[in-house]
Amino acid sequence: MADHPHVPNDPSRPAGGQAAAAQSAAASAPGRPTLAIVGATGAVGTVMLSLLDERPDVWGEIRLIASARSAGRTLRVRGEDVVVQALAPEVFDGVDIAMFDVPDEISAIWAPVAAEHGAIAVDNSGAFRLDPDVPLVVPEVNPDALADIPRGIIANPNCTTLSMIVAVGALHREFGLESLFATSYQAASGAGQVGIDTLYDQLAAVGGRRDLGQTAGDVRKTIGDDGFGPFPAPLALNVVPWAGSLKDGGWSSEELKIRNESRKILGLPSLRISATCVRVPVITTHAVAVHARFGRPVTGAEARAVLTNAPGVAVLDDPANGEFPTPADVVGTDPTWVGRIRQSPDDPHEVALFVCGDNLRKGAALNTLQIAETLVARGLR
Amino acid sequence: MADHPHVPNDPSRPAGGQAAAAQSAAASAPGRPTLAIVGATGAVGTVMLSLLDERPDVWGEIRLIASARSAGRTLRVRGEDVVVQALAPEVFDGVDIAMFDVPDEISAIWAPVAAEHGAIAVDNSGAFRLDPDVPLVVPEVNPDALADIPRGIIANPNCTTLSMIVAVGALHREFGLESLFATSYQAASGAGQVGIDTLYDQLAAVGGRRDLGQTAGDVRKTIGDDGFGPFPAPLALNVVPWAGSLKDGGWSSEELKIRNESRKILGLPSLRISATCVRVPVITTHAVAVHARFGRPVTGAEARAVLTNAPGVAVLDDPANGEFPTPADVVGTDPTWVGRIRQSPDDPHEVALFVCGDNLRKGAALNTLQIAETLVARGLR
Repeated sequence: MADHPHVPNDPSRPAGGQAAAAQSAAASAPGRPTLAIVGATGAVGTVMLSLLDERPDVWGEIRLIASARSAGRTLRVRGEDVVVQALAPEVFDGVDIAMFDVPDEISAIWAPVAAEHGAIAVDNSGAFRLDPDVPLVVPEVNPDALADIPRGIIANPNCTTLSMIVAVGALHREFGLESLFATSYQAASGAGQVGIDTLYDQLAAVGGRRDLGQTAGDVRKTIGDDGFGPFPAPLALNVVPWAGSLKDGGWSSEELKIRNESRKILGLPSLRISATCVRVPVITTHAVAVHARFGRPVTGAEARAVLTNAPGVAVLDDPANGEFPTPADVVGTDPTWVGRIRQSPDDPHEVALFVCGDNLRKGAALNTLQIAETLVARGLR
Repeated sequence: MADHPHVPNDPSRPAGGQAAAAQSAAASAPGRPTLAIVGATGAVGTVMLSLLDERPDVWGEIRLIASARSAGRTLRVRGEDVVVQALAPEVFDGVDIAMFDVPDEISAIWAPVAAEHGAIAVDNSGAFRLDPDVPLVVPEVNPDALADIPRGIIANPNCTTLSMIVAVGALHREFGLESLFATSYQAASGAGQVGIDTLYDQLAAVGGRRDLGQTAGDVRKTIGDDGFGPFPAPLALNVVPWAGSLKDGGWSSEELKIRNESRKILGLPSLRISATCVRVPVITTHAVAVHARFGRPVTGAEARAVLTNAPGVAVLDDPANGEFPTPADVVGTDPTWVGRIRQSPDDPHEVALFVCGDNLRKGAALNTLQIAETLVARGLR
């Protein structure tokens, strides 16, 4: 497969165009790997099908798999109709790579089944991320972790970790990360389609009302107790300092994911890292305010130069002209966008950044697909 | 004036009621100090008049002052009509305390004029905050700074600093603050009435639209380039990592205010402090994610106990039951609300918090009035 080179992490790569032109040939080419997409009908699966249209096509057959409820539906893949199959052991026969975007408990059962059938499973659930026998991979940061895949399973990081780790990883390679503070501004779609629907409904309820947000609880009353969807409080006209489930010491599972996954991806098992995760009324694209301390002094210009040359990173940093990344301005794009790059006036080892990444693309579908593409480029192992 | 005790910082204090009952008597009582409110017709001035209705009344005459444009208007003060006077030197004759909520350049000229006329000026602009001869005061944190008022001027901190400093100050008193990371979730009203109007207009434009926020720039196009108001990017369905003006090294003026004002208020001139200020689509109440490191280990329980007993602080911290402060749930209230109190698993000296404070009340009008009330309780000096 090494004769199909590609550049999975180049943000300057044009979308569509050349890749689309190569599609028919690729789909019928003999010897190309078979790809299965498990969870093809979900929010991330939908983005995955878009990405397959946009990126250089290295695939033979692409098999779509979902729950029995969604089986039989037809989706467009590379310009052709493909019928969705129900999840079952035999659908993995002949599959080279199976990408999973399904709940933890489904992945926990079915990723090993795919591996038993000879596929490499690339899993976007939380089921395997901290398993020492499962590499947790971001191709721009730790591609060498793909050298050993003992269980036949590779894990894709959590979307919030992925929103910042490409930028943080590039700085770490150059300057040596010592500690990290990360506070998030997380989009509703991180909670899935129900999160998106909930925020749209809430915005419809508050839009045009000029009396809300000035008195305690009036937003809550307007939306109604049954209108919070997957969130523990109103999200429109509000921010909610909670994502995930409660863990020891008052930390949320989302905050500990950022800590534990960043440590594993960066190969820094005792990194000091502290996160606060907050949901904001944005549909898609997570933002993260990062304050990072390095082993040596780092000026803003040095950090900017490293980030400008880092694969998968786009720098937008000219606040005098209103240029910095915002979620609504970068949603739907592939890079990790970085702005507000500045050195601490109190600690020359510390750099602050504001980072934005589309949580459905780089935060989920794109990184999973990049892992799969990297496997193909390396001849699958 | 010491015979008029009050409890300016007690969040359990009932609003209205007893205070309102005492109003008529207070308004006509001989020997009570004369208060001037400069900027009475603005957003903060409006909140100030509400607070004067709610709190124990220690005032004799209350004089309302605004620009020539607003002079002649009538506002209700303690249940009575008061005519707004135009700003001029003679309006300060006989004034004991003059509270200013006007732009920096107006305060820079007129606060000294009030002081020359024998008033103590309590100024909420940025004109004097870092002047070494002007105390910068939060009554719960550094009331003793009122012992010396060389220029006859006292400064009120910036609203974002005020949203967190009462909680941080309480922890510092007990545990000794060593370094601080603060990232903000700042409300539109921090940019004044035009900020509020802009966000309401943007929400009216996006409310009910289910197609926005999925593609780069579609929110920007829907709102239109002339709809951003005082913000450098769309605020609805977005977050904007910018507040204030550009300073050295890429820092925003708002971020440096948090740093410099916190150092002065806490009496820690070389405190390591790093802030990222981000505007969010909330009408009123700033939130701040705080990660603070202290001179000794601090458990979550120890921090919670100190905060529970701290004047001006209300703790809401039971995430298992969805209890943590959010801006929409605490707007219009006086305390600094604190939740998500937790000790770092990597550094026992570090505690994380999520703090919310109404930026128009404690962040502006309330703290200004508390300073004035404290002066009265202390016999003006």
